[in-house]
Amino acid sequence: MVNTTKPIGVGIIGLSAKGGWAATAHVEALRAMPDRFAIKALSASTPDSAKAAGGAYGIDFTTDDPASLVAHPEVDLVVVTVKVPHHGELVAHAIEGGKPVYCEWPLGCDLEESSAIAASAEARGVRSFVGLQGRSAPAVRYLRDLIAQGYVGDVISSTVIGSGGFPWGGVAMANMAYVLDDTTGATMLSIPFGHMLDAFTWALGGFSRLHASLATRHVSVGFIDSEDVVSATAPDQIVVGGILEGGGVVSFHYRGGDAPEQNFRWEICGTKGMLIVEGDSGHLQYGHVRLRGRQGADPLASLPVPAEYRRMPTDPSGYADAVAHAYRAVHDDLTTGLSTVPSFTDAVETHRLLDRIERAADWTRRGVTE
Amino acid sequence: MVNTTKPIGVGIIGLSAKGGWAATAHVEALRAMPDRFAIKALSASTPDSAKAAGGAYGIDFTTDDPASLVAHPEVDLVVVTVKVPHHGELVAHAIEGGKPVYCEWPLGCDLEESSAIAASAEARGVRSFVGLQGRSAPAVRYLRDLIAQGYVGDVISSTVIGSGGFPWGGVAMANMAYVLDDTTGATMLSIPFGHMLDAFTWALGGFSRLHASLATRHVSVGFIDSEDVVSATAPDQIVVGGILEGGGVVSFHYRGGDAPEQNFRWEICGTKGMLIVEGDSGHLQYGHVRLRGRQGADPLASLPVPAEYRRMPTDPSGYADAVAHAYRAVHDDLTTGLSTVPSFTDAVETHRLLDRIERAADWTRRGVTE
Repeated sequence: MVNTTKPIGVGIIGLSAKGGWAATAHVEALRAMPDRFAIKALSASTPDSAKAAGGAYGIDFTTDDPASLVAHPEVDLVVVTVKVPHHGELVAHAIEGGKPVYCEWPLGCDLEESSAIAASAEARGVRSFVGLQGRSAPAVRYLRDLIAQGYVGDVISSTVIGSGGFPWGGVAMANMAYVLDDTTGATMLSIPFGHMLDAFTWALGGFSRLHASLATRHVSVGFIDSEDVVSATAPDQIVVGGILEGGGVVSFHYRGGDAPEQNFRWEICGTKGMLIVEGDSGHLQYGHVRLRGRQGADPLASLPVPAEYRRMPTDPSGYADAVAHAYRAVHDDLTTGLSTVPSFTDAVETHRLLDRIERAADWTRRGVTE
Repeated sequence: MVNTTKPIGVGIIGLSAKGGWAATAHVEALRAMPDRFAIKALSASTPDSAKAAGGAYGIDFTTDDPASLVAHPEVDLVVVTVKVPHHGELVAHAIEGGKPVYCEWPLGCDLEESSAIAASAEARGVRSFVGLQGRSAPAVRYLRDLIAQGYVGDVISSTVIGSGGFPWGGVAMANMAYVLDDTTGATMLSIPFGHMLDAFTWALGGFSRLHASLATRHVSVGFIDSEDVVSATAPDQIVVGGILEGGGVVSFHYRGGDAPEQNFRWEICGTKGMLIVEGDSGHLQYGHVRLRGRQGADPLASLPVPAEYRRMPTDPSGYADAVAHAYRAVHDDLTTGLSTVPSFTDAVETHRLLDRIERAADWTRRGVTE
């Protein structure tokens, strides 16, 4: 366990002065808890970019060598927030250094790589956390508890309609082109759909049977910030149907781009009532969701998240909120020995389910069904 | 072709003084066009019930013998509106009598019976119409034309969420118990889902691939008007995913019972725009639907059905409206030789697709996956 007399020292691999997810979410989340966390080091791809980030965020120790970040004596927790294809090699430094590591989701490019990363952490006894922050979001935790407490009774069915959002709708920014490439492991399937799937199964249990269609319908994607056009191979349509282990009948439909009114709607219908989860985007990991419910024939009513689910004073509509709640739980886990935050082993379970969906699916790319 | 100097004489098999679909929809629809149709005869299961219905609706010729109804010289069109298991034997009278016949959907209990009925009409050269009235509803015809005219561009995806309604939600009226019995052919799959599927494929084309889950989740259904409990075998959950021949990716989820807010929502997303069809129930054949759409990044706007699609002064929110529009088109077909109304052959195509879904499906009954 980590020393609790001072804040946990954090080293972030992949913090850029230009912004990005680490800057938007992680730095803000960590700095909301100065009594619990202190960012002590960062690494970036070059010494200059690392120095620029250090200046931007006021972090003294900067490096382009992940191993030296891991080795820094004040780093108690290594955070990996780079693009997915680099997760494996960077997490390996933390594992070799024997330090607890928090890696963003997806853990690896596919099930095989994710399993290898998790096995490596397990073999070395390194404490691991994965960035499936949806499970930490107050609204999602409340939702799961409502279901577990029998609010809807037995689950009869559940329906999810979600939007993947901007880069998968036929236009993209050039720096996001990699999420259109199915080989990177950072796609609409693994990111928005994967985060939702993780929270969904955490709340409702796993699938006994499933079937799926995946398709790349926008096969030529233009950039809004250049003249280029890229050939997309990642799915921009995901349809999954199936039966949960508990018997509930499920349908998912994720669509690329944004949709008016229904960027995210998740219905859970049971023998005693129903719950509706709505959000501004299909990215459930942001945690920007609202709950409504009814029991019996009551009218639908808003279900505000009770105060005890909010452990941090961060902005519930901000990108840092679910990440901050995840770090708050990481602090608990590291200082008490609890295991409340999803580990690499949990990540592998969700990778396994995504892999099962890919194997089950009719796969249409460039108009051809494979 | 039928004589156009006087109204087409109609004989209704299955009109009851107690009400029901024939009384609610067919009588009202036919009587909205006294210049085009006149109800000349009715049959019911006993002489007394036939006489009672004749008194209630002012129809002179009543009988319990369908053959004599068909043989009546003033009957130009035989209408069959009884429970599905009796369609085959009653339609056979019209076919033997060589008279045009309008049979409610579903045509038969299954694909095999429906195919036999259609083949029999074909062999005898009898003009047939099937009660897939959704195709006649003004809003559905307008929707199909919008799609054909390129309003949404190429169809990228389509999502349908519908409710089967009252009898499939875990409680029923005793006289509706037969729709919970999968062997009757009158189930949530064939009735609300089947009508929707027919209109869907009429507007968007057929499926190149599909997969499905069917389940009976409410296996014990209580009656609100008696102490009895019946064992249900008809599906009350229908999930279908697939790829259209044109490449569009589709998901359907029909749920038993009613749902707040989303009893029917059908989204059609294309390269140029999108359409949203909403209704008060999942029974698209009632035609109580509203259209909205947008092209490009425009806001969603209501798309009122243009006046030319309304051929009848019936109430657009009433059960008779789509049926009246269907009869209006039947009159055209019978007097001009056109073929605008779906025939038994069209019905077989939709039965074939339902059969394909049943064969493809994971089927869960009484908690056991077959």
